[in-house]
Amino acid sequence: MSLPHTATPPPRILIEDPRPLIDCGRYPSKACVGDRVEVSALIFRDGPAALRAVVRYRGPGDPAWSEAPMHRGELERGEDCWQGAFLVDAEGPWRWSVEAWTDAEATWRDELERKIAAGEEDLSSEFAEGALLLRAAAARASGGDQQRLASAAALLGDPAASVAERTACALDRELAGACARHPDRSASTRMSPVAAVEVERLRARFGSWYELFPRSFGGFAGVAAQLPRLAQLGFDVVYLPPVHPIGRTRRKGRNNALVAGPSDPGSPWAIGAAEGGHTTVHPELGTLADFDQLVATASDHEIEIALDFAIQCSADHPWLREHPEWFHQRPDGTLKYAENPPKRYEDIYNVNFDCENWSELWLALRGVVEFWAARGVRIFRVDNPHTKPFAFWQWLIEEVRARHPGVIFLSEAFTRAAPMYALAKLGFSQSYTYFTWKNSRRELEEYVTELAHSGVEGFLRPNFFANTPDILHEYLQNGGAPAFRVRLVLAATLSPSYGIYSGFENFENVPVRPGSEEYLDSEKYELKQRSLDGPLLPLVARLNEIRREHAAFQRLDNITFLAAENDNLIAYAKSDGDETLLVIVNLDPAQVQEGVVIVPSRLGLPPAFEVTDLLAGERFSWRLGRNFVRLDPAERAAHLLLAEPSA
Amino acid sequence: MSLPHTATPPPRILIEDPRPLIDCGRYPSKACVGDRVEVSALIFRDGPAALRAVVRYRGPGDPAWSEAPMHRGELERGEDCWQGAFLVDAEGPWRWSVEAWTDAEATWRDELERKIAAGEEDLSSEFAEGALLLRAAAARASGGDQQRLASAAALLGDPAASVAERTACALDRELAGACARHPDRSASTRMSPVAAVEVERLRARFGSWYELFPRSFGGFAGVAAQLPRLAQLGFDVVYLPPVHPIGRTRRKGRNNALVAGPSDPGSPWAIGAAEGGHTTVHPELGTLADFDQLVATASDHEIEIALDFAIQCSADHPWLREHPEWFHQRPDGTLKYAENPPKRYEDIYNVNFDCENWSELWLALRGVVEFWAARGVRIFRVDNPHTKPFAFWQWLIEEVRARHPGVIFLSEAFTRAAPMYALAKLGFSQSYTYFTWKNSRRELEEYVTELAHSGVEGFLRPNFFANTPDILHEYLQNGGAPAFRVRLVLAATLSPSYGIYSGFENFENVPVRPGSEEYLDSEKYELKQRSLDGPLLPLVARLNEIRREHAAFQRLDNITFLAAENDNLIAYAKSDGDETLLVIVNLDPAQVQEGVVIVPSRLGLPPAFEVTDLLAGERFSWRLGRNFVRLDPAERAAHLLLAEPSA
Repeated sequence: MSLPHTATPPPRILIEDPRPLIDCGRYPSKACVGDRVEVSALIFRDGPAALRAVVRYRGPGDPAWSEAPMHRGELERGEDCWQGAFLVDAEGPWRWSVEAWTDAEATWRDELERKIAAGEEDLSSEFAEGALLLRAAAARASGGDQQRLASAAALLGDPAASVAERTACALDRELAGACARHPDRSASTRMSPVAAVEVERLRARFGSWYELFPRSFGGFAGVAAQLPRLAQLGFDVVYLPPVHPIGRTRRKGRNNALVAGPSDPGSPWAIGAAEGGHTTVHPELGTLADFDQLVATASDHEIEIALDFAIQCSADHPWLREHPEWFHQRPDGTLKYAENPPKRYEDIYNVNFDCENWSELWLALRGVVEFWAARGVRIFRVDNPHTKPFAFWQWLIEEVRARHPGVIFLSEAFTRAAPMYALAKLGFSQSYTYFTWKNSRRELEEYVTELAHSGVEGFLRPNFFANTPDILHEYLQNGGAPAFRVRLVLAATLSPSYGIYSGFENFENVPVRPGSEEYLDSEKYELKQRSLDGPLLPLVARLNEIRREHAAFQRLDNITFLAAENDNLIAYAKSDGDETLLVIVNLDPAQVQEGVVIVPSRLGLPPAFEVTDLLAGERFSWRLGRNFVRLDPAERAAHLLLAEPSA
Repeated sequence: MSLPHTATPPPRILIEDPRPLIDCGRYPSKACVGDRVEVSALIFRDGPAALRAVVRYRGPGDPAWSEAPMHRGELERGEDCWQGAFLVDAEGPWRWSVEAWTDAEATWRDELERKIAAGEEDLSSEFAEGALLLRAAAARASGGDQQRLASAAALLGDPAASVAERTACALDRELAGACARHPDRSASTRMSPVAAVEVERLRARFGSWYELFPRSFGGFAGVAAQLPRLAQLGFDVVYLPPVHPIGRTRRKGRNNALVAGPSDPGSPWAIGAAEGGHTTVHPELGTLADFDQLVATASDHEIEIALDFAIQCSADHPWLREHPEWFHQRPDGTLKYAENPPKRYEDIYNVNFDCENWSELWLALRGVVEFWAARGVRIFRVDNPHTKPFAFWQWLIEEVRARHPGVIFLSEAFTRAAPMYALAKLGFSQSYTYFTWKNSRRELEEYVTELAHSGVEGFLRPNFFANTPDILHEYLQNGGAPAFRVRLVLAATLSPSYGIYSGFENFENVPVRPGSEEYLDSEKYELKQRSLDGPLLPLVARLNEIRREHAAFQRLDNITFLAAENDNLIAYAKSDGDETLLVIVNLDPAQVQEGVVIVPSRLGLPPAFEVTDLLAGERFSWRLGRNFVRLDPAERAAHLLLAEPSA
């Protein structure tokens, strides 16, 4: 380590442990348009000296860096932690950094004040030093500040002026302001490298989803006809499983039978047939024009159509013929179908990302997404991304977003935490989670705390689906209608994004066999006739309405779990601005549960306050500390209490 | 993000969150010669596939990288956490990295086994694929492995061979071994950038220190005469405050008086006089030759002499005359003495690290350290490093170590956590701590847990001084001899490095005034006559002996605090290999305290076991769970129990 070859010594200030950084800055953190990005860093230098710091930030279209002041804060990180924030008002990649410098004038003023307080009498050297500093500051300033600084320098440097006069001048607050406006930042320290925040539209974080098979609603036109009702129910996103032609070779029959009957429609995830592949629609759903009309009608109702991006191909997909080199060929020349022994997916073939023409394959897949993005689809639910290369997703998402800003990708990766989190870090806007398998209070508290308060909240946005075509949890199988109410309230109030798959509102709860999470007579393999008439829909509509009215439900990290003296009760507060909502859910779908819920003082509520149950309309008197709650699952799953400002 | 311009697709495996990294790898982590460096990382890829991983490492003199296997482990970090370790057997900068690859043969074998288990009958494609893989492996192998792989490939590819024969061949364990010895690592992923570990000799972590003023022991020759006794007491390091000529101008008198009496010797930290500066010895201590003799005699007794590196200069230091440009000149041309209002240090001047000739100043300071290093001094206790630039220390330490391997720097930075930790990160071997101010059980447990188990242990090595010439804590002032025993036992058993400043063993406990931590009649300002005869010395000697015999006391991170049902008792276990030591200290110097100490099963001790008190020699029967303890401060401060393997 040779002597630094610089005219001036290396910077005196260290900037350490800036936050938020994801994996040391390897990936951007996430935010949504309208968010204040709160940043912090440890900022300090050797010796006593007054410091100043700013957060520097730059949006995707900004011609230059902007700055916001940072201040000491966050005591849990120590006295040297500085905080600042900036508003992100546009989608795209933002950058931020921290710059800090020594405030020579404030350091001088502080020392002078301490000497005066200590009763030191000879301050002539201090005044002389101040004069030097102020003269330099004047040279950096202009207009009124320049004048003020120059005259103060002259007065401090004038041995004829009285000590009282010079002291008053030195400690003048307006002079301090003028100094602060013209700092000497020539020896400042800048955080390196700069950090990144990927900013998306609010829908990337907050939305109510409804999943339906269009073939069960009469195709695209039938779904379009349901849009007014779906809008009335408060859904933001209608997600459709694959809408493409379905393979006929080795098509699966009802209940996943190896051989399909003549009228069995096959699984929509067996993509591709003679009619076409990933850029074609199934003829029985309608035409591409019908699809376009569906997207347009949805847009009129402020609903977005989300498509499924599932890469696998049926045996009849045109790509198998046109590009056999994209698939895994066995030594005997045949293609290898998808399998994970003992499981076999005889109706689908996975592409081979290790093939020689891998880059053509990447481009073709990007072409699929762009085909639909060009038709107005701005949300893609990605099927099993964890079985395709991470590098591919990182590239694809960045490419698509660059061309089609605002496109949202939802990762369906039910896998171990590390790969699930990696997909979120590398670009997926939101993620399916383990929510369906978290049913006890301990499980829910632990998991939501991990998602909301462990650092994961910086890169992963959960989407809590209460059920999916593949997941009918035992809790729903056994708990009857009350279990569905519980899971609906939890999903809708714990996570800013949540969804249900159709049938949920009808309490459909019969598994294909005991111990399975698959539905009996699953819609994946047969035609159903569905309509939006489930008895749970009024609760759905009310919850979606509440979620829109109360911004506290549009964020993840504002949750506080409350102590409840009954393990069947889970209680949590969600806060936003001045508003606090308290949710108490009886997790036992079979029995009345009662107990005490404890409101801690850190929520900032007054000692006694009124609450309104937003679901049932009743009013109660609550207080800090212990509050009695009783929930009968036959009547309702939860209290959803809005705390009112005390009179 | 354009398409990667590579013939092969980007690596499939991700390597995330490697540990230990200090500040994302900005600083090296620390280890001592003989340590096993345990590393871990999250390693995973898309889809199901068998992975292999190694840690790659390279010592300062190694001509090439070595490798050690990594295995899945550390459940608390999830299934994708892999662990490995390597031994560091030389001082200096080491590098390490992780490399992981897909094991195609193991993946194939695993899928084959699962198909056989599922009862699949047609395995011909699997055998054909295996033949291809094994042929490729044979091409990478040589000798017997090559032959084995080639014949297995031939058998698997032979349609005339029976299924049983081919199955047996495919699943043969020796074949698996041959595959593992010749992996295809062409598509491996390497962690980037590589990580660093700074390896120092054991003394950087472990040592018993004694601080003395040589002028109180008759100068260098007098100290040399004490060395046999100091060695007998088990000290490893004798640390001397500055040994240089002391300024006469504005010399401080007894008890820090502003004016010195004619025979007052002044503070050794007011460095420099007509006789010389930082590379000169005080004539009253002896000559440079006497100093050299002291170092040599110490070495004969396996003791090291540690010197103080204090940068400030007295008004009479030659540098003020020779290099006034290195000091802060006020506008009136005078030099500014050290002060931190209302405190004033009229007898010393700080150098100005912002001066124009800063690089000359840096070189001169390096020259001082190198002057003493060349005379055999290999430990420097650095005075107030937090008031000098961080960049300077980073440069100085690296420079000195490159020229004088094995030099140890101890940071005396009693400041906020962030700058204290920054000094440790940038290169100081060990650090003074807040130990003297941690006296209650909660304070001690919290602080030691922070040092040993919060990540700090990766870069900071504590040196627990029980007192210093500047710090006589209230606990010692008020607690009498028992308080000294308590603090001695705590320092010597909580921290691998610890020290006492002379007078501690005599229970010296009178402050200069109530509320002050300064000693009355402080040795800093007056001549004392000292000898090594304090009543605490037998306990010191025994503790130092125990520390040498039991490696558990030579490490920091092996501590487990035990529950004790009396807040005046603190209990902890230290483990190393098969050995477990239990320390129970009565923190109350005034009263007998008794209570139950709980031995948890996670220590790995048998349900019942015998312990020997290494201080008093008694034996007791202990068990997992509750054990009664009674400690009378009039008799002893602590039990120091060695658990014995059960009979």
